[in-house]
Parts: sequence; C-alpha cells; structure tokens
Amino acid sequence: MFDLKLYLVTDRPLSLGRDIAWIVEEAAKGGVTMVQLREKDCSTREFVDLACRLKDKLKVYNIPLIINDRIDVALAADVDGVHIGQSDMPYHIARKILGKDKIIGLSVETMKQVEEANLLDVDYIGISPVFSTPTKTDTFKPFGIEGVKKVMEISKHPAVAIGGINTSNAIDIFNAGADGIAVVSAICSAENPKLASEELLNLIDSNS
Amino acid sequence: MFDLKLYLVTDRPLSLGRDIAWIVEEAAKGGVTMVQLREKDCSTREFVDLACRLKDKLKVYNIPLIINDRIDVALAADVDGVHIGQSDMPYHIARKILGKDKIIGLSVETMKQVEEANLLDVDYIGISPVFSTPTKTDTFKPFGIEGVKKVMEISKHPAVAIGGINTSNAIDIFNAGADGIAVVSAICSAENPKLASEELLNLIDSNS
Repeated sequence: MFDLKLYLVTDRPLSLGRDIAWIVEEAAKGGVTMVQLREKDCSTREFVDLACRLKDKLKVYNIPLIINDRIDVALAADVDGVHIGQSDMPYHIARKILGKDKIIGLSVETMKQVEEANLLDVDYIGISPVFSTPTKTDTFKPFGIEGVKKVMEISKHPAVAIGGINTSNAIDIFNAGADGIAVVSAICSAENPKLASEELLNLIDSNS
Repeated sequence: MFDLKLYLVTDRPLSLGRDIAWIVEEAAKGGVTMVQLREKDCSTREFVDLACRLKDKLKVYNIPLIINDRIDVALAADVDGVHIGQSDMPYHIARKILGKDKIIGLSVETMKQVEEANLLDVDYIGISPVFSTPTKTDTFKPFGIEGVKKVMEISKHPAVAIGGINTSNAIDIFNAGADGIAVVSAICSAENPKLASEELLNLIDSNS
C-alpha cells in the first residue's frame, strides 16, 4: 500500500544545485510519504544510478519510490512504480511491461481524462495542475480548488494534486477531497527540505 | 540473425524536416540491412508510436529494427533489439530486462571498451566514431581506419563502424575488417534516400 498524503516530486533545476539524493533523504526524515524521481535531461545510466541510490535510502523509511515516465529506469532499479503523463507510454502498455504489482500513477489534465482514467486500473491519478506554476509548462488550464472538488466527485481512484501547492493552500486541497498533495519547489527549493516537509506534514495532520 | 552490412541510424535534425518513416522506408527499398531508430527529444508516446510504424514497414522487408538507448520503447513496440552507449543502461541490466532473444548492440569508444565488450555476450559492437562528425558530440578521439583494424584484430563480436562514413570511405571500413557501416547523414540527409542506399550497397557489393 501507499499513502499519497505528502508526495515529493523531484526537480533538478529547482534543487538549486544541491544533490537530489540529499534533498530526498532530508524530505524522508521530515515525513514525506512518497517520492517521485523526475529527470528530464540526464543520461539513462545516471538516471538508473540515482534511482538505485534513492531506493536504498528510502527503503529505511519504508517510503515508496516512483519513477517519472521512464519504465526502463523503473525496471532497472526495481522501484515501486512509475508515474506517467498523457504523452508518456500508453497506460495499458506500461501495465503490461510492469506487471500488476507495480504502482502506476497517471496525470489527468482535463475532466475528460479523469473519466478515461476511471476505465483503467491505475493506482492513483495526479490532478495536474491545480494552480498555475512555472514547473509544468505543457499543461492545460489549472483545475483550481473547484476543479479538484469536481474531480473527486467522479474519480474512482485516489488522487494527488500537483502544481503550485505550498503551506498557504495545502489544506484547501484536502478539504476539496484529494488524498494528497504533490509538491516540487515547496521542498526542493526550501533552504531546509526536512523542515519544509515537517511543516507541511504538521499542517496536514493538524487539520485532518 | 542480422546483417550489419548497411546499417541506417536515424536522426531527426539531419532529416531536413522530412518524415522519418518515409526516409526509413525509402532506405529499406534501397537495401539497408538494419535500422536503428534514435530519438533524443520526443515524448515517450511519440517514440513508441514511431517505433510501431517503422516496425510494420520494416517487417515487409525483413529488416531488423533496433531502438537507441530506450529499452522501455523497445519493449513497448516489441522490436528486434536495442543499441546502447556507454552512458545508457548498463549492459547486464539491459540483457536481464530484454531477455536473451533480443539483439543488443554496444557502442565502444576506446580499445579498453572493446576489451570490456569481449567479456559480455553483446550481439555486436558499434565502433564510434571512425571519423569525426558533427552528429556525435560526446565521443572520444575518432578511431580512424587504423583504429578499426586494431578493433577487428581483438574483438570477439561482429562490428559496425559509425561516424562520417559515406561513399568516399565506405570500402576502407570493410577493408579494415568491419562487418558493416552505420550511416546517418549519408542517407537521412540525402535528397533521395533510396538512391543513396542503393549506391552504398552497390559500392559495398562490388568490392566484396
């Protein structure tokens, strides 16, 4: 099983030159419940090596590691699952390659895609983006809090929301019915990623 | 079995805006013996779709299709194999994921890497580059014709040479003992890719 509550998505440019493995470990100490490794520009070997390092670190905390897009990297490092977007591997092929035991998350960018996801046995959906953000540039109009509510009314899957989430709006996401928040810069760019994770977690727990 | 004799490696920027599937089919009509699909910047979905299209086209000509680097794409499209470089997936992991029946080619950039490849059950090696070329920017010093001779003296695997090969130097590569030539711009950038392939093939066959 997995817990979407506080889901860290890594981002190299937003990590301010710091080691991603260090950020992930600090975030793990601070209580993140899942980690997605997202790399867009490194070599396959570097990606696999980093995935293996993160897997070893996260095992200690019993936190699942998810790989963005790259099913080859997920297989090579034998991590817990993948997160795919609408322009990544088609879901049914990803499931066939990975088998039934791996976690597969799917990004949804429109209500139509939420309905389509309902017909698939994905493990969770990623509502993307909730708010506009410089991190994701190729996405549709942000869902907003009202959009998240609408998604949660019809989705058959657990959902994590992503895009511009931080301490100022995290609780709104949960109040809208989502199962978790995915954060990028709120942890990756924080001066103290452990403290930033703890603050988000405390905020969520004290409001649930 | 596969024949390295005239091995086309695709390149989107060098295709001058033309459809890669068209170039590959023309090259197949012209007699290329293998095709490697190499994509560096497209989405995974686009890569898989193109691989499936090429596979259907090449099946008619009984020409193997190899995917550069991306083992996930090779699995998704169920093609004949992959070609990996020294910064791609480590060979033993690639073999484990793909199984023993898929072709795996490995680029070698130094004599030391040729020796290392001798210890692996790769299906062929790619001697890269033979001549300097604007296509490959991250490689070691070119092998040159003398380098190809030295590689062929010690390699336990069949080998295809790549980098700056065209009608002016193709025969030298075979005379140095290589099993084939891999070409990029000589076909991808040719006004008539079918004719360019035929010319290379005729040249090779009339000198063997």
